[in-house]
Amino acid sequence: MKQNKYDDPEFFASYSQMPRSVRGLEAASEWPVLRALLPDLRHKRLLDLGCGFGWHCRYAREGQARRVVGVDLSENMLARAADMTADPAIEYRRSAIEDIEFLPGEFDVAFSSLALHYVERFDAVCRKIHEFLTPGGAFVFSVEHPIFTALAAQQWHFGPNGERLHWPVDDYHTEGPRHTHWLADDVVKYHRTVATYVNTLIDSGFRISKLLEPEPSPELLAEHPELIDERRRPIFLLIAADRE
Amino acid sequence: MKQNKYDDPEFFASYSQMPRSVRGLEAASEWPVLRALLPDLRHKRLLDLGCGFGWHCRYAREGQARRVVGVDLSENMLARAADMTADPAIEYRRSAIEDIEFLPGEFDVAFSSLALHYVERFDAVCRKIHEFLTPGGAFVFSVEHPIFTALAAQQWHFGPNGERLHWPVDDYHTEGPRHTHWLADDVVKYHRTVATYVNTLIDSGFRISKLLEPEPSPELLAEHPELIDERRRPIFLLIAADRE
Repeated sequence: MKQNKYDDPEFFASYSQMPRSVRGLEAASEWPVLRALLPDLRHKRLLDLGCGFGWHCRYAREGQARRVVGVDLSENMLARAADMTADPAIEYRRSAIEDIEFLPGEFDVAFSSLALHYVERFDAVCRKIHEFLTPGGAFVFSVEHPIFTALAAQQWHFGPNGERLHWPVDDYHTEGPRHTHWLADDVVKYHRTVATYVNTLIDSGFRISKLLEPEPSPELLAEHPELIDERRRPIFLLIAADRE
Repeated sequence: MKQNKYDDPEFFASYSQMPRSVRGLEAASEWPVLRALLPDLRHKRLLDLGCGFGWHCRYAREGQARRVVGVDLSENMLARAADMTADPAIEYRRSAIEDIEFLPGEFDVAFSSLALHYVERFDAVCRKIHEFLTPGGAFVFSVEHPIFTALAAQQWHFGPNGERLHWPVDDYHTEGPRHTHWLADDVVKYHRTVATYVNTLIDSGFRISKLLEPEPSPELLAEHPELIDERRRPIFLLIAADRE
């Protein structure tokens, strides 16, 4: 049974108040880096796994993608996404990411933003995406970084005065569920090593073209000096891979 | 000026007493995993960067490599390596890794074990190796893992009773020298992110074929239960890449 926290009313209410839920992509600090990994979307068919409110689907249409399918397990998310567009070239489909079914070669680009760390079987997802992408297609995604997911607490190690001493890593090689607290109790995320992300892609027939661990840009730091601690450990892992 | 700690008599004496210096590859827990990344060496020409006592050079010759060149900056290391073989197909050459000069396509395999984190310019080394490898050649190496090199202390965070609470990560995005203590004071290692290792290879014309963060095997843990903490954080990063 896949967890569907976004249809829990309290969780959804909290999520809806996050800056990136209110202001969209401009409030997501990693978006400029993730966006740069995407190919030119003009005339492309894009699949967005864990599309949420559909911000990336609408972005793809602004880039003249010719067809966009957003997949999400949450009815709440998809209803909000549907409210925000009347574009007939965007289709929202309710499904767990692991359960998607499309035709071979139906897409040119597979995309996922901060959703695949909720998926237990990354290998199964990679095999499906490989099938649904056309040869030469691109798979671009972001996940929480393994340094960030190793410990379920997902928190700094604090000193006696509440100062952030360092980021603790433990149980790195123990892959599997982490019962985290994020907006609500017991949000299940799946920890995987960097090696597993990379090798599962390669073993599924992808070629790694870029791997990024974004940090705040100097411009962002000038505007938001409180983000300086984001240079101390990576929070996101971004990978672009080409389907062969 | 490249650091050459291995020609410091005290450092060299300490290093010479390490299990892997006395017993060779069988005492290096990551060796079985690193070895498995190597292609069949029969009739191949292999370059070993940071060859030390030449264990891997001799291994390559056991695998019927037809020519082996071991490079090291340390006169002490190379003298010991030369003492251990009279094989005319092995040549030991004294040089800093960054300063190697060979002919284009002179090697089929480039190899390096735990040496490239001493090198400041990984990009320059990758460009040279790409030049000296024949198309389709393999570059296989191990380095200390970025999780391990981020903090110069390279040590667990201990509790009040000396227990290992977790592994601390900090300054991850600040690449550059780390003045570490390892067998001696002020051994300079260079911290790089995982992203830098991967993207520098790709940008230099390599294709990543495998990325590993080895952990002790169940057999090794049965024999050495004290290694259980090695499952808590990665200490080594191993990458195999193909020259295109």
